[in-house]
Amino acid sequence: MSQPIDFYFDFSSPYGYFASTRIDRLAERYGRTVKWHPLLLGVIFKTTGGAPLPAVPLKGDYAFRDFERSARFHGIAYHRPEPFPLPTQLAARAMLWVGQTMGDAKAVEFAQAVFRAYFVDGRKIIDPDVIGPLAAAIGIDAAALIDGANSADIKERLKAEIEAAVARGVFGSPFVIADGEPFWGFDRFDQLEAFLKNGSI
Amino acid sequence: MSQPIDFYFDFSSPYGYFASTRIDRLAERYGRTVKWHPLLLGVIFKTTGGAPLPAVPLKGDYAFRDFERSARFHGIAYHRPEPFPLPTQLAARAMLWVGQTMGDAKAVEFAQAVFRAYFVDGRKIIDPDVIGPLAAAIGIDAAALIDGANSADIKERLKAEIEAAVARGVFGSPFVIADGEPFWGFDRFDQLEAFLKNGSI
Repeated sequence: MSQPIDFYFDFSSPYGYFASTRIDRLAERYGRTVKWHPLLLGVIFKTTGGAPLPAVPLKGDYAFRDFERSARFHGIAYHRPEPFPLPTQLAARAMLWVGQTMGDAKAVEFAQAVFRAYFVDGRKIIDPDVIGPLAAAIGIDAAALIDGANSADIKERLKAEIEAAVARGVFGSPFVIADGEPFWGFDRFDQLEAFLKNGSI
Repeated sequence: MSQPIDFYFDFSSPYGYFASTRIDRLAERYGRTVKWHPLLLGVIFKTTGGAPLPAVPLKGDYAFRDFERSARFHGIAYHRPEPFPLPTQLAARAMLWVGQTMGDAKAVEFAQAVFRAYFVDGRKIIDPDVIGPLAAAIGIDAAALIDGANSADIKERLKAEIEAAVARGVFGSPFVIADGEPFWGFDRFDQLEAFLKNGSI
């Protein structure tokens, strides 16, 4: 029985969102499952010295263009969100709480709803008044979710998850590890697919 | 008559090298020509605050792995060079001199020889005693080339070329601009091809 594929992402990452629309079906084609891991890139960038794309001269302008063009090229719904990027602690913690109390499948359903809310509908996913109703719409108790997301236990768990990810070499979003092999970026999904298909590249 | 596609690269960039093995044939399939532009990423990084990949924590280790895997995936000969990266002033200036005195086709032939020398044969392309014989092997006067590459005129031209590139938004290697549309990275060659084919994405 093979291990799940680890899929790391930040809810504020457009390429992470693109990957989220494809990763489960891709894995399924090769009889694999996926474990979704929300991260905070801001915390990781303290280790790597990275910066959000829009903050980098020249690269920032290109990035906004590339988000839209890549979405069109891959046929993914996308609408440039404002503000961008956003702090995603609440969404990440909420997802961990959903996973802990309702299981991984529900956590993934919640994550997909969050990504869609931000990158398609332009909702401010930093706001409990956005996250709560969005959760309620898929059968999650909104008040319990917000309480749970703000609990010391979940805060600690997110920190530990991020530390564990960095210890495995994760430095960006999306980041996939399959059988020990790391893939950074939605633009490595072609290589990820070849690896899942053939067991090597 | 359509404009040439602009192809920007640094001789020390593995992804630039990968792109150099494909760009001419790709353009040809759509009846287009390519203008090759050697750059110095070190100079550009002063504008963008960028850094060579190997210098970035976590990202550096991943990058070396990705260079080798991407080469295998795309079927491109590649051998990890040491030292890496290298200053590429000499190679870039030499290429400009070849273009000026012998024309663009010869300059491209020279550039391909330089890339191969570094990324396949592991030669130190910072060294005139490497660049000279490599040029001589394709019918270029080695002594005239080294003199030309070190002339004030060519040094000035490389500076001006880099400034012009940055002014167009170029910040990495490879970087392609086709009909005003920018593509950063060998991993955008799929989008570049779609753009050349359809005139839009």
